[in-house]
Amino acid sequence: MLVQKFGGSSVADAERMRNVADYVARVQRRGDQPVVVVSAMGHETDDLMEIAGKVSRTRPGREMDMLITAGERKAMSLLCMALHDLGVAADSFTGSQAGVVTNGEHTKAKILDVRPDRIRAALDAGRVPVVGGAQGVSVEREVTFLGRGGSDTTAVALAKALGADACELYTDVPGVFSADPRVVPSAHRLSKVSYEEMLEMNAAGCPKPTMRSVEFARAHGVRLHVRSSFTWEPGTWIEKEGSAMEQAIVSAVVADQSEAKVTVAGVIDRPGIAAKLFRALADKLINVDMIEQNVSLHGTTDISFTVPHEDLELAKQIASDLQNEVGATGIYADPDIATVSIIGAGMRTHPGVSATMFEVLATEGINIEMISTSAIRLTCVVRAGEADRAVAALHKAFGLDREGGY
Amino acid sequence: MLVQKFGGSSVADAERMRNVADYVARVQRRGDQPVVVVSAMGHETDDLMEIAGKVSRTRPGREMDMLITAGERKAMSLLCMALHDLGVAADSFTGSQAGVVTNGEHTKAKILDVRPDRIRAALDAGRVPVVGGAQGVSVEREVTFLGRGGSDTTAVALAKALGADACELYTDVPGVFSADPRVVPSAHRLSKVSYEEMLEMNAAGCPKPTMRSVEFARAHGVRLHVRSSFTWEPGTWIEKEGSAMEQAIVSAVVADQSEAKVTVAGVIDRPGIAAKLFRALADKLINVDMIEQNVSLHGTTDISFTVPHEDLELAKQIASDLQNEVGATGIYADPDIATVSIIGAGMRTHPGVSATMFEVLATEGINIEMISTSAIRLTCVVRAGEADRAVAALHKAFGLDREGGY
Repeated sequence: MLVQKFGGSSVADAERMRNVADYVARVQRRGDQPVVVVSAMGHETDDLMEIAGKVSRTRPGREMDMLITAGERKAMSLLCMALHDLGVAADSFTGSQAGVVTNGEHTKAKILDVRPDRIRAALDAGRVPVVGGAQGVSVEREVTFLGRGGSDTTAVALAKALGADACELYTDVPGVFSADPRVVPSAHRLSKVSYEEMLEMNAAGCPKPTMRSVEFARAHGVRLHVRSSFTWEPGTWIEKEGSAMEQAIVSAVVADQSEAKVTVAGVIDRPGIAAKLFRALADKLINVDMIEQNVSLHGTTDISFTVPHEDLELAKQIASDLQNEVGATGIYADPDIATVSIIGAGMRTHPGVSATMFEVLATEGINIEMISTSAIRLTCVVRAGEADRAVAALHKAFGLDREGGY
Repeated sequence: MLVQKFGGSSVADAERMRNVADYVARVQRRGDQPVVVVSAMGHETDDLMEIAGKVSRTRPGREMDMLITAGERKAMSLLCMALHDLGVAADSFTGSQAGVVTNGEHTKAKILDVRPDRIRAALDAGRVPVVGGAQGVSVEREVTFLGRGGSDTTAVALAKALGADACELYTDVPGVFSADPRVVPSAHRLSKVSYEEMLEMNAAGCPKPTMRSVEFARAHGVRLHVRSSFTWEPGTWIEKEGSAMEQAIVSAVVADQSEAKVTVAGVIDRPGIAAKLFRALADKLINVDMIEQNVSLHGTTDISFTVPHEDLELAKQIASDLQNEVGATGIYADPDIATVSIIGAGMRTHPGVSATMFEVLATEGINIEMISTSAIRLTCVVRAGEADRAVAALHKAFGLDREGGY
């Protein structure tokens, strides 16, 4: 049994919808048992958000969820019709009908339980179930939406509940790459990455598959396969790190230009100052990513942190409001940065990886402004304009230019 | 308590949606308890049908219903959002959530029962329930669609189940008229018609409100009020014929050009011939409206009947196939006809109405080709090109030109 999730671009129009149906029909014909999860078609979710914005300022969550879930409903029923045309018996199921039980947090509900009785009944009857992604029903019987990208989570949760052999996430790219192929032409598709590597890549700026679905898959041991609905070739497996898995020192190089840096300079170096600053930022729901505090020499210190670009103004404002209280000499906002990260499970056991990274950047004449590390990730903040050059140099230095070169 | 149904044109875009919300807010503020039923926005249902046609040839009913009901879902959630903006607590409900239980006949499900527990709970909590029209859930827990125009039926059924004081059907015209105002400029809005008159007007070609909803309202004693969501002025009440109701002899003149005539000429006049013909037509699901059999003088007779234009070719074919068996001398199809009907509860007790109608048409030089009657309706078939002139002359002759002139 395979849970197969098709993203919005995979079912963007009638022709692509029929292509997906044709593929699912072949999967069934070759003897596998497909359970399909489908996102809303193309830009449908954006279109629904737009009309909501035109009708309402308040946009209450309960009604937004009722509205947005119409998108997957449309896609799932159309896909079933296309399957019927090919002689494949198929039934569509809303999140509620599929037994996806969530909490009541509208617009970003969390899955509490999956009770796929109707899905199992459909499978037992030899039918292909097609489930609307990113939707569920709360314990209060309200329609809920899991949030953007929630279809991945639906697929993984269903795969777990049904005990599927794997969860395939079909998208418009053929898998997870060693670097962005637009930046590094020699970047290659990774055939396997561990959950942990994928999560670090997500954190470092790789948007797909969603971090949430990878976390869920890791927690429940669901094997993920990220692959293309355009070429149908095998993609990237995301699974438990095993002895059989090739141990790359570094698997991928990821850059992210979505963050900006704020520096609070000349702060008095005493306990509680950093806490005050970051509590104030957290209270305004600002997602702080990296934090660096320089060594204090003269009783004062500089605190730098990164935030998403859209939060930069607010973060700067909050820091300015606290300037006198923390005794800072100045607040500096810098939108012109990028993070460059190397990720690899092999880093754990290979000393000197960080030294290599710093040397490569130094050779390129690229200045490192901040550094952050985890067991399998190493991130440097550099000037935004130098990110692409840094990625290319690191990709080469860690031997990723050769297909399967790790 | 008022059940208020808003048709597709009433919520066609964001601005009209906000207008409806504003109106519902006023209704609540003046102390009435509104229960809203809403159709899909503008041409949404047509758009969904179109994309289904592009994706699938077979279009299975279960999936069509899942698809089409996305339309009302979108409208109902958006309307709730607009109500929230105005400070009105409102919750949307699918047909299933509203307790509309239907049979399993997809694409044209029939309501079996309405169990509006959640609607009552919302009302008790001081909230405005907004229900998706034309949808329900089957006893097999499948999503069902009641068919085009089914929102009227949802509204009437809810009004009955909730014991509402009236069911208001808001549309893009200000009510039911004594004749089509495009044909007869002096036509006036009727302030009241009986269920029976409305049903006869439906049968004679008046499309709104749907016959099905009027039948339901009549059977369950629900008072209907057809009115405009553009001007908000009082419209036409459709209710039980009472002693207090003004007894017009003739309430309205209705023309219909959607039918064509078939004549089977020179048929042997013996029992069972007509039965054979109309059984064959019924077997092919052809809706025969009027039937006329001329007096037989020489052992043979002519049988004429009317059918919808789209069924003309098939009806002609069926009659031709039977030509030898019934001994007919010829089959003639005539697409160029119209029916002109006068409707009025007063006709029952006023003899001579038919004579007046025939005289008026004769004075106009309009030939009558077929006649059909009921207790409160009189219909003549005339040449299509003469229908407008017939309507205007009859409207004047029966005193309908004066506002409230009956």
